[in-house]
Amino acid sequence: MAVLPPDDELRKRLAGFREILARERLSGFLVTDPRNVRYLSGFTGDDSALLVTARHRLLLTDFRYLAEARATAPGWAVRTRPPELLAKAGHFARKLRVRKLGLESEHLTLNMLKSLRKAVGGMRLKPTAGLVGHLRLSKSPWEIRQIEKALRIQEACFRRVCRLLKPGLREDEAAAEMRHALVRAGASDESFPSLFQWGPGSSWPHGRPTARRLRDDSLVLVDWGAKVAGYHSDLTRAFFIGKIPKRLREIHAVVAEAQARAKARVGPGVAFAEVDKAARSFIRKAGFGKYFGHSTGHGLGLCVHEAPRLSSRAQGELQPGMVMTIEPGIYLPGVGGVRLEDDVLVTEKGHRVLSRAPMGLRWNGGNE
Amino acid sequence: MAVLPPDDELRKRLAGFREILARERLSGFLVTDPRNVRYLSGFTGDDSALLVTARHRLLLTDFRYLAEARATAPGWAVRTRPPELLAKAGHFARKLRVRKLGLESEHLTLNMLKSLRKAVGGMRLKPTAGLVGHLRLSKSPWEIRQIEKALRIQEACFRRVCRLLKPGLREDEAAAEMRHALVRAGASDESFPSLFQWGPGSSWPHGRPTARRLRDDSLVLVDWGAKVAGYHSDLTRAFFIGKIPKRLREIHAVVAEAQARAKARVGPGVAFAEVDKAARSFIRKAGFGKYFGHSTGHGLGLCVHEAPRLSSRAQGELQPGMVMTIEPGIYLPGVGGVRLEDDVLVTEKGHRVLSRAPMGLRWNGGNE
Repeated sequence: MAVLPPDDELRKRLAGFREILARERLSGFLVTDPRNVRYLSGFTGDDSALLVTARHRLLLTDFRYLAEARATAPGWAVRTRPPELLAKAGHFARKLRVRKLGLESEHLTLNMLKSLRKAVGGMRLKPTAGLVGHLRLSKSPWEIRQIEKALRIQEACFRRVCRLLKPGLREDEAAAEMRHALVRAGASDESFPSLFQWGPGSSWPHGRPTARRLRDDSLVLVDWGAKVAGYHSDLTRAFFIGKIPKRLREIHAVVAEAQARAKARVGPGVAFAEVDKAARSFIRKAGFGKYFGHSTGHGLGLCVHEAPRLSSRAQGELQPGMVMTIEPGIYLPGVGGVRLEDDVLVTEKGHRVLSRAPMGLRWNGGNE
Repeated sequence: MAVLPPDDELRKRLAGFREILARERLSGFLVTDPRNVRYLSGFTGDDSALLVTARHRLLLTDFRYLAEARATAPGWAVRTRPPELLAKAGHFARKLRVRKLGLESEHLTLNMLKSLRKAVGGMRLKPTAGLVGHLRLSKSPWEIRQIEKALRIQEACFRRVCRLLKPGLREDEAAAEMRHALVRAGASDESFPSLFQWGPGSSWPHGRPTARRLRDDSLVLVDWGAKVAGYHSDLTRAFFIGKIPKRLREIHAVVAEAQARAKARVGPGVAFAEVDKAARSFIRKAGFGKYFGHSTGHGLGLCVHEAPRLSSRAQGELQPGMVMTIEPGIYLPGVGGVRLEDDVLVTEKGHRVLSRAPMGLRWNGGNE
């Protein structure tokens, strides 16, 4: 059974969402994105939906989840969805006399819209974007605790799996060991496919693990995370086995300093682009600007990549409760790549770095 | 690197798809479903799309996958997708002078449609359903071999993990061991979250593994599968540890006979509903009709659940090359559930059962 947010927190989320509906003049809303279903109701089954009005709240699911839905989402009227989820949702929206129904345009497919339209008659359908997402931007203390639990799990597994790093080990084998370690240590899953990259292969940002075998002297890049109660953590470390080439030692130091500067910049009211700039301008001045091709970070929560994004073009400011990755990198094609990623909470007065895994030249934190 | 279908097979798939486009009078088609992208091009990266016309074929992806796209999808013109995949796709569709562009209504979201519309000007956009899916119904010999490889992997892991079944083992621990075993044995992933259910918990069809611990005398239900080169296998076994209650022994025999009858019915030209009926009428006559609440089977391929569906209401007939699960079950609430699932290929003259895992009262095939 899934870990549930406290009742009062679920109540607060729903109340906040109903305020948004009133402001947007929507008399009803159909939630189909499973992360938003979970956020508002606590329910985690797939192929389900929520129908929310000012006075009613329905959870539509199928026979597999009926008992679970009743147990985990008290206060929600649970209804079975046959013959078809969207047709049933439309049926209930009519029954509740919804005049203008909000929809999640980032999740609803053309096919789902067609089924819904057939069922609702003349009701107005209003595609919206990011209404639940807006509520999800700032994390509650309970949500932050879940991300911290995920971090403690992934950090313990980092030590466990790094001990297995021996010449001959394949990237995909290390990734499989990490995934298994995370689940055995209490994560419900890995946050995303664990990534190990050896040597020059590390110069492809966000590639996939291959059958490449670890050699005696090698750069190792690890990007991994744990999922707890639906919440994701996400870290990257880059370190060395054996000899350390001068060029890679240099970029490791540059990335570490850029990352420290970006973290130091995190605080309430700071523009997203400012945090990006803190890392990017340092890397540019060090002469590696064109080897840092991605943004500096992203929000973490019920999705592993969620709003906001810390890029040079991003609009907006950090708010207390946001949990962000800070992950600059330098990738020298055919030579190697270094990315260092921490998870940082925006607090009322500044920030708190949530992650604790060492960031030295060696995986155990050593610096030679 | 992903395992690729042979070149001549990819050519044949694309030629078949262009015939469909001509028949549907579409001058272009935008493929956004990642399974269909893979089916037509061989390319497996996410957040990518294909733009197909009678004369051109473009693969739109981002910097992470450029090298891989060029290596794995020869013949496709590879283009980067920034600033935004759908805007870029629209831009190219205009450049290729597409007048009527087909879209995948089962995958395209309202948001994606909005971005596309902005970019295409007055071009006609035509939502369609199942055009690539239609090609995917009948599997080629190469595709069947991938499913067979997946079956051999999952069957070997079944023996490996069943040896670990000791009193005290938790369902979710067994599921984690299965997943790890599958990946270590050469699967790219499990087909879906491996499911172990002990005792009365097995009476919830398609539930999720819990922290329940295995007891001395218990029914064990296992639903698991392996993924190879994008193709899925999917089996279920139900067997006993220790004493076998009379009632559960009886339903095991009924399900086994119902499953044998449904498999025997599989052949080209046979109505989907006929196969369902072969299992369902036997279970009904044995007095358990109301305890068999799901359909008898589904297609297997690049999705673990794909068309067609073997249910009482399904329209259509089996064709050679279809690979189907056959999986009747009886679930006695609070007592236990038995489901037995094999994977069956429709051949020119009849069928061939692809799966080999034993189906006795004991996991090693013993029957007491």
